[in-house]
Amino acid sequence: MAFSLPTYRAPDFSTRPLRDCPFVVFEKVRKTGVAPENYHATSIYPEYFHLREGHWQLLKDSRMDCVVVLEKKGTLTAREFRHLRKGDLVALGRRENGEEGIYVHTRGFDLNRSGTDKFAFRTQFTRETSFSIDYDQLYDLLEFERKNGFIVWVLGPAVSFDKDAREAFVAMVKRGYVHALLAGNALATHDVEGALFGTALGQNIYTKKTAPLGHYRHLDAIRAVRSLGSIRKAIKKGAISEGIMHAVVKKNVEVVLAGSIRDDGPLPEVIGDVYEAQDKMRAVATRATTVIALATQLHAIATGNMVPSYRVTGRGQVRPVYFYTVDMSEFAVNKLANRGSLTAHSILTNVQDFVVTVERGLRQACSK
Amino acid sequence: MAFSLPTYRAPDFSTRPLRDCPFVVFEKVRKTGVAPENYHATSIYPEYFHLREGHWQLLKDSRMDCVVVLEKKGTLTAREFRHLRKGDLVALGRRENGEEGIYVHTRGFDLNRSGTDKFAFRTQFTRETSFSIDYDQLYDLLEFERKNGFIVWVLGPAVSFDKDAREAFVAMVKRGYVHALLAGNALATHDVEGALFGTALGQNIYTKKTAPLGHYRHLDAIRAVRSLGSIRKAIKKGAISEGIMHAVVKKNVEVVLAGSIRDDGPLPEVIGDVYEAQDKMRAVATRATTVIALATQLHAIATGNMVPSYRVTGRGQVRPVYFYTVDMSEFAVNKLANRGSLTAHSILTNVQDFVVTVERGLRQACSK
Amino acid sequence: MAFSLPTYRAPDFSTRPLRDCPFVVFEKVRKTGVAPENYHATSIYPEYFHLREGHWQLLKDSRMDCVVVLEKKGTLTAREFRHLRKGDLVALGRRENGEEGIYVHTRGFDLNRSGTDKFAFRTQFTRETSFSIDYDQLYDLLEFERKNGFIVWVLGPAVSFDKDAREAFVAMVKRGYVHALLAGNALATHDVEGALFGTALGQNIYTKKTAPLGHYRHLDAIRAVRSLGSIRKAIKKGAISEGIMHAVVKKNVEVVLAGSIRDDGPLPEVIGDVYEAQDKMRAVATRATTVIALATQLHAIATGNMVPSYRVTGRGQVRPVYFYTVDMSEFAVNKLANRGSLTAHSILTNVQDFVVTVERGLRQACSK
Amino acid sequence: MAFSLPTYRAPDFSTRPLRDCPFVVFEKVRKTGVAPENYHATSIYPEYFHLREGHWQLLKDSRMDCVVVLEKKGTLTAREFRHLRKGDLVALGRRENGEEGIYVHTRGFDLNRSGTDKFAFRTQFTRETSFSIDYDQLYDLLEFERKNGFIVWVLGPAVSFDKDAREAFVAMVKRGYVHALLAGNALATHDVEGALFGTALGQNIYTKKTAPLGHYRHLDAIRAVRSLGSIRKAIKKGAISEGIMHAVVKKNVEVVLAGSIRDDGPLPEVIGDVYEAQDKMRAVATRATTVIALATQLHAIATGNMVPSYRVTGRGQVRPVYFYTVDMSEFAVNKLANRGSLTAHSILTNVQDFVVTVERGLRQACSK
Repeated sequence: MAFSLPTYRAPDFSTRPLRDCPFVVFEKVRKTGVAPENYHATSIYPEYFHLREGHWQLLKDSRMDCVVVLEKKGTLTAREFRHLRKGDLVALGRRENGEEGIYVHTRGFDLNRSGTDKFAFRTQFTRETSFSIDYDQLYDLLEFERKNGFIVWVLGPAVSFDKDAREAFVAMVKRGYVHALLAGNALATHDVEGALFGTALGQNIYTKKTAPLGHYRHLDAIRAVRSLGSIRKAIKKGAISEGIMHAVVKKNVEVVLAGSIRDDGPLPEVIGDVYEAQDKMRAVATRATTVIALATQLHAIATGNMVPSYRVTGRGQVRPVYFYTVDMSEFAVNKLANRGSLTAHSILTNVQDFVVTVERGLRQACSK
Repeated sequence: MAFSLPTYRAPDFSTRPLRDCPFVVFEKVRKTGVAPENYHATSIYPEYFHLREGHWQLLKDSRMDCVVVLEKKGTLTAREFRHLRKGDLVALGRRENGEEGIYVHTRGFDLNRSGTDKFAFRTQFTRETSFSIDYDQLYDLLEFERKNGFIVWVLGPAVSFDKDAREAFVAMVKRGYVHALLAGNALATHDVEGALFGTALGQNIYTKKTAPLGHYRHLDAIRAVRSLGSIRKAIKKGAISEGIMHAVVKKNVEVVLAGSIRDDGPLPEVIGDVYEAQDKMRAVATRATTVIALATQLHAIATGNMVPSYRVTGRGQVRPVYFYTVDMSEFAVNKLANRGSLTAHSILTNVQDFVVTVERGLRQACSK
Repeated sequence: MAFSLPTYRAPDFSTRPLRDCPFVVFEKVRKTGVAPENYHATSIYPEYFHLREGHWQLLKDSRMDCVVVLEKKGTLTAREFRHLRKGDLVALGRRENGEEGIYVHTRGFDLNRSGTDKFAFRTQFTRETSFSIDYDQLYDLLEFERKNGFIVWVLGPAVSFDKDAREAFVAMVKRGYVHALLAGNALATHDVEGALFGTALGQNIYTKKTAPLGHYRHLDAIRAVRSLGSIRKAIKKGAISEGIMHAVVKKNVEVVLAGSIRDDGPLPEVIGDVYEAQDKMRAVATRATTVIALATQLHAIATGNMVPSYRVTGRGQVRPVYFYTVDMSEFAVNKLANRGSLTAHSILTNVQDFVVTVERGLRQACSK
Repeated sequence: MAFSLPTYRAPDFSTRPLRDCPFVVFEKVRKTGVAPENYHATSIYPEYFHLREGHWQLLKDSRMDCVVVLEKKGTLTAREFRHLRKGDLVALGRRENGEEGIYVHTRGFDLNRSGTDKFAFRTQFTRETSFSIDYDQLYDLLEFERKNGFIVWVLGPAVSFDKDAREAFVAMVKRGYVHALLAGNALATHDVEGALFGTALGQNIYTKKTAPLGHYRHLDAIRAVRSLGSIRKAIKKGAISEGIMHAVVKKNVEVVLAGSIRDDGPLPEVIGDVYEAQDKMRAVATRATTVIALATQLHAIATGNMVPSYRVTGRGQVRPVYFYTVDMSEFAVNKLANRGSLTAHSILTNVQDFVVTVERGLRQACSK
């Protein structure tokens, strides 16, 4: 079934009480990196700012936990605290229904919620929730987004640990379902280890046999890349001829590899400064229309922080951003929800199976 | 801080629309064990049945997923389907607001729920939820219930696997915080194994050393009890001189040991027929005012099925029943919630620590 | 790749020290249900009993935690303690290398273990272990077993909660990959609920919408079956026309539904006495050559207790029994291992994905 | 019971075959950051390098996954790949028994391993393992280390989420059981949020009530610190007057706050470059004699990478380094083991309970 975007309904600012709301007040930053008191912080929802009579401006490219800066040209920007410069004009006000000129719009898209019984079963989301429909909808969504959107994958290393999953992911890259990849040193390292030695942390990704001196393998992989200068160069020179990194580089997929304190090496492309990495991730996140985060709390939450629930397209259309997390534990999934990302869809399973299943589903959906 | 029972507010049946509701209709059972169509099934909440003009009768000793039978003496009973006899009069109607003479009362006790912000963090319950207040409240509650209530503990075998936890539980039994014990063959077996050999499944419950031929230990424990005739006899004869089973027998705590297909043995007191076991468990559950279930999905859910959210005391007072589950995983806890037991409190931790902490907290609270 | 059974190498009893071992001693049971002291308890491994000069008899149809009874006709039987009758002759001795005429043979099949490095990664089995090869081997194994073995599935209710998984399981039943089904009241109830209403515990197994008054659905399903007399009759009369129970009944798959204290209802076919249920399960387990347990600790461990690591075929050949557990948590899997079932294979994933993937894999393997 | 260090037994290099081993070969680094081929990588164990006739030098201040550099003054250093400079002399050889002049010594301390039965239960470590002895040993160990060692705590944010746990940790800091603290922006942020508002991510750390506009709280906390310049200044000025950060600053505990891509803010003291953070962490880790990591995979694994299994004290004594991880899931714990840290002790529980229990245990042990 073909996917179609849900209709967005903007608030009606022409009627009371919104019509009568005050304009939003902006105050100057006095100290770099420090917002004025009573700053407004963004949520994941569309937010409108009453700038002048009859004009409520929708914040584009939002993300949660930022302040809203009025740029000189009159546009609004969601900005991280650390990027505030002295003199920046920051929106004030914490009330959400226009009382201070700010309106947080949580019901722009139809979200049919079910259930008004006094007594009900299955109110909690768990591993026993049915996921058949999620897969079916995901196939349709990805098919749509491949041409009309921007699909960002956020990968923990697990995908590189299993032969079938790794190959399935590569196949999706090749067929255009991956527009950007956010990951860390580990994913890239073990993928390269797989390309060079067929192992991940020394264990064969198919036979599961532990290679003799297997604990050298990831170090040898890192060393090989460092000696050639970069992953890209290693691919160019033919040293790396398959795998996830090979596929994304060949396909010109945008990649951000963010460093962490767990890293060995690191690989040359890995960004050691996490706030610089955040900036690069946000540059990608800002274009995302669908995000799929697999088996990584660190990168999933980091990306979740940066991705709002909506996107304003080039043609000014407001559409949802779809956010999927796939993990084995209810805890990981709830953790994201507890950071405010209530609109995320979750599938509780092993990402190995998830990737293989999605790739196969896309192939079959396509061939129909 | 001393615990006091919250006030119960009954519905006001003297005003509309409740005043004008029809009487509840009863229909005869035609086939033993089979309810008439459109039977009403109970929830965990107080339910009132409109029997005659101006008289709405509150169902006492309820439990969920039962039908309501009008007894000859005019009282109402929540009865399991398997206990329906031909000719029993069963209440009909599934609407919950009096439309069919049945009113499900979900708001009898003040439950202050928080939060109306459009955007909020920490809406999900996880292992990172703070539990300090739960412990403090539990100390007060158990102190109150020791004298005024009926405290039912539901134990998985884990408590018998650890020396400190086992001793702490025994101390609580001795001091009167345990009025009934619901468990299975495994808890009793490993507790007896501990009493006889200091091990659980062959591993020392303190040193963790695996005994040589340790896999014989639980079988030897079962054999010892079987050869003496029962746990009670083994205690009487001095063969078992310490541990959980010893303490509850000595203290005349009510015990139901329910069988399962996992059982070795079984021990003589274990009830092999699970529906007979259910009946015995319900006889206990019907008196419960506080239930604490530790590290057992099977017994926790079984007991949760039988325990409603309220109890009508001897003096006709309606009070809450407190239900705690302690487990390591969000899944286990959600599983209970998904069976309708939304009023359960949960603490996510290792039951070893929980039991030790509660026993110590009760001791300190007492000595103040 | 076609599957072939590994070769079994029996111990060489013709050479020392085994040649010189004493005969095993048997002692009479004096009290029904109580083994004599120093009884020998079985493991999961092939065990040989030195009965007379030059004759070491291999125990057939073994299972762990039983005693070995010398039958009148001279054969040996692994018997549960509860089935011991006064006068039964029970093998004595706990040493495993023939010192008491009993030899436990752990190395009959080649098990190539890897790794002798002093320092190694990935020594623990986790969700990040690669499972590609497990799937591939499972396809081959099931294809082989379909014709040459006896495949027992042990199902928690989760498989009935998801449309795709439920359909995939049905497809495997129809194509002959399921020779026996061990489950509980919940699996059957929610499967029947699915057949009648398309829901599980009131939630649609595809759309995930909660039906109004959804908490009645499983009770209505149970009621429907009880009123018709049994699942079989409900199928015969056309009341149940699809789903897992429908498929296994139509295909004459052996089914044991074991009761538990969690059960509502129960359904008529459910065996309320757990030790009677164990006997029926063991009658199935005794024929098993491959067991696959999905998302159930209770039934998986119960079955694991009954399934040894080997089977003596009709032609006297000794072959391995393959035991797979599929679950979401390392804990569940380790729990089985800690009961002695060290030879079990485990796949850590959501059983929904597992069943769908296996069914698809079998179909593709078949069509090659 | 007083703790005493186990005796270390060095290998005997005076006898064959070690006596006859070749000297270790060193090769120059040709490209900065790239080790020569066949470099030797360190493990967590004591490693000896045969430098000249009769002299095997033990590597001090080791950590795994580094190369060994021969310094100009003749000493050996374990160095990360990224710190290799052109011309550095790197030890070659991967064999572990002296064949290339390198000896990896895994058995320096008595590690009594149990069990040679062919069939055994409880071979896996799980939440059901008994932890009583671990607590008792930990009290003794920490009492010893307080005076004689260097205790490093590695904290995820969870400890700051619960009032009792937070207070217990502060008490341990005050009494000298915390010599260094490794954590991230989140721990510090939510601890400061607790100091300023009594909340963590907007939820009261005792009452669990969600504050109105609670999602502003951590941002306000960060803003407050940023406006004052640093956590230290905020403490000096009295803005922060209690909590974990307050306690460690007042007590001059060494603190490393490492940045991650999940960070809001960040707080001024947080190190944004993860490799610079690693260097600072290693400077601490190099002195660690006991490490306790609570509820953080990221920081626990990062620290685990840097901490070897032994330490050479000022007086040249070789002693073990104790490494504890406390977490709720077997997966987290296995993850560390799978990175080679096989010597880590693990306790599976909620860190809230762990911290409260340890603090109380230390107090009681002390007062004896």
